[in-house]
Amino acid sequence: MKLVTFASAGGPAIGVLDGEDIVPLAADPSLPVDMVDFVALGAEGLERAAAVLRSGGRVPLDGSRLLAPIRPRNNVMCVGKNYHEHAREFAGSGFDASAKQTVPDAPVIFTKALSAIVGPGDAVRVSDDATGTSDYEGELGVVLGPGGYHVSEADAPAHVYGYTIVNDVTIRDLQKRHVQFFIGKSAATYCPLGPALVTADEIDDVGSLRVQTRINGELRQDAPVKDLIFDIPSLIASISAAVQLQAGDMIATGTPAGVGIGYDPPRFLAPGDVMEVTIDGIGTLTNPCA
Amino acid sequence: MKLVTFASAGGPAIGVLDGEDIVPLAADPSLPVDMVDFVALGAEGLERAAAVLRSGGRVPLDGSRLLAPIRPRNNVMCVGKNYHEHAREFAGSGFDASAKQTVPDAPVIFTKALSAIVGPGDAVRVSDDATGTSDYEGELGVVLGPGGYHVSEADAPAHVYGYTIVNDVTIRDLQKRHVQFFIGKSAATYCPLGPALVTADEIDDVGSLRVQTRINGELRQDAPVKDLIFDIPSLIASISAAVQLQAGDMIATGTPAGVGIGYDPPRFLAPGDVMEVTIDGIGTLTNPCA
Repeated sequence: MKLVTFASAGGPAIGVLDGEDIVPLAADPSLPVDMVDFVALGAEGLERAAAVLRSGGRVPLDGSRLLAPIRPRNNVMCVGKNYHEHAREFAGSGFDASAKQTVPDAPVIFTKALSAIVGPGDAVRVSDDATGTSDYEGELGVVLGPGGYHVSEADAPAHVYGYTIVNDVTIRDLQKRHVQFFIGKSAATYCPLGPALVTADEIDDVGSLRVQTRINGELRQDAPVKDLIFDIPSLIASISAAVQLQAGDMIATGTPAGVGIGYDPPRFLAPGDVMEVTIDGIGTLTNPCA
Repeated sequence: MKLVTFASAGGPAIGVLDGEDIVPLAADPSLPVDMVDFVALGAEGLERAAAVLRSGGRVPLDGSRLLAPIRPRNNVMCVGKNYHEHAREFAGSGFDASAKQTVPDAPVIFTKALSAIVGPGDAVRVSDDATGTSDYEGELGVVLGPGGYHVSEADAPAHVYGYTIVNDVTIRDLQKRHVQFFIGKSAATYCPLGPALVTADEIDDVGSLRVQTRINGELRQDAPVKDLIFDIPSLIASISAAVQLQAGDMIATGTPAGVGIGYDPPRFLAPGDVMEVTIDGIGTLTNPCA
């Protein structure tokens, strides 16, 4: 099922994407209006959504405004340097103030502020970045279902509710200057999410999905998820070894090689640029830079 | 005004601490039940609370259960290495995998997961830490009022709503192993907050407040807030230069010297230890280790 959050007359609402239509889940008043609350219902929520899908009203996707599919309760958790080629390009760029080794021994986890989240089509305000070092990072986002604590790698797949796309937009100068990545990763509008939250059952082999990022139509990033250094079960196990994960929490799994600082000279974002991150089976997350 | 969140028959509720009593703000049904929503009301909320304080009912503090006074919407933002002596003891301990310099040029900001928050008296489950390297960090927490973006240092004081106490409990081995601090800082139960949120008008000179931490009654940390390397206006300006701050967001301002890894050999926490962080004018945040 492809789940979306969209702007309705009554405020943000959730629905199912079906072809060129959105089927609003408000047709079943027992269902929540917020995606985190819906995710927390697990299989029961999906069964009720399937019933709405069979009989509920429809609104055309064309003309609707999609919002970020989900706003987790904890900050968006992100993985640094999780593709070999990207770890090398980042080390070579001089922008990693925290690096002791190019490829980490354990996953490097930081967060993006929830206040940075925007939806598909929303502008990323790179003109607010006085350092002029804004950069894109296309990534697969994993949305957790039942939460979890001390989850083993073997049990981790049962904790994956679904997938979305994250563009982990970054101000490189601030990422370096503050050593810990939070500020450089959390600028207002710098966390586009979407377009849909696709439930795990729709993805046969997550490793075969390709993460592709285009800037103004030019392909810059293109790698399969199976190239991750720390795979999804390993990330869930590492984080939940300490952190209480909650329903609807999100892990952005890391970005492949081809970011702006991988070029010499670096190719930073400028107002007017259009970023598109595509993952087959999920869709394309498009955001203009303003 | 000393604001608290407490357990009531109807769930968490907010109130004003007045001597040995709590004055529940539910007496005014126009006031919200959540502290973040109350903080967002600003001066208007405080005026209505003052009216309740004059005429509302009271419940004795003795016998009530205080909860974390506030649960921000963004993860709790924390400052690393923000007291000179602590920066030196941390560098000397070998537990900072990200350090290039002992005293940072710019504030080092990371976050603690919201799912780690507990209240006064709640147990911190150090027995869940298989590495046996759990450590206390007493800190002044600043709660922001109107939020803010691109706030200047001159304007920053107007964005401070009040203060509380944070114990930034940390698993040192994970803080080092994952390089970025998030996992080591975000273990379940590792973010005690409280006992009260004291509004800024009650504190004449925040710099003169002393942060004192006792473990089993032994004074381990004792320093005035004026020893901060980056003071509160500087922190608000640095973070809001990129991040959209929201009403109720919290900045834990950093810990003084005297943490467990400042000793040789390190003095880590063990089940049965009692941690007390005291800041005059705010109170004492006491948490047992389990």
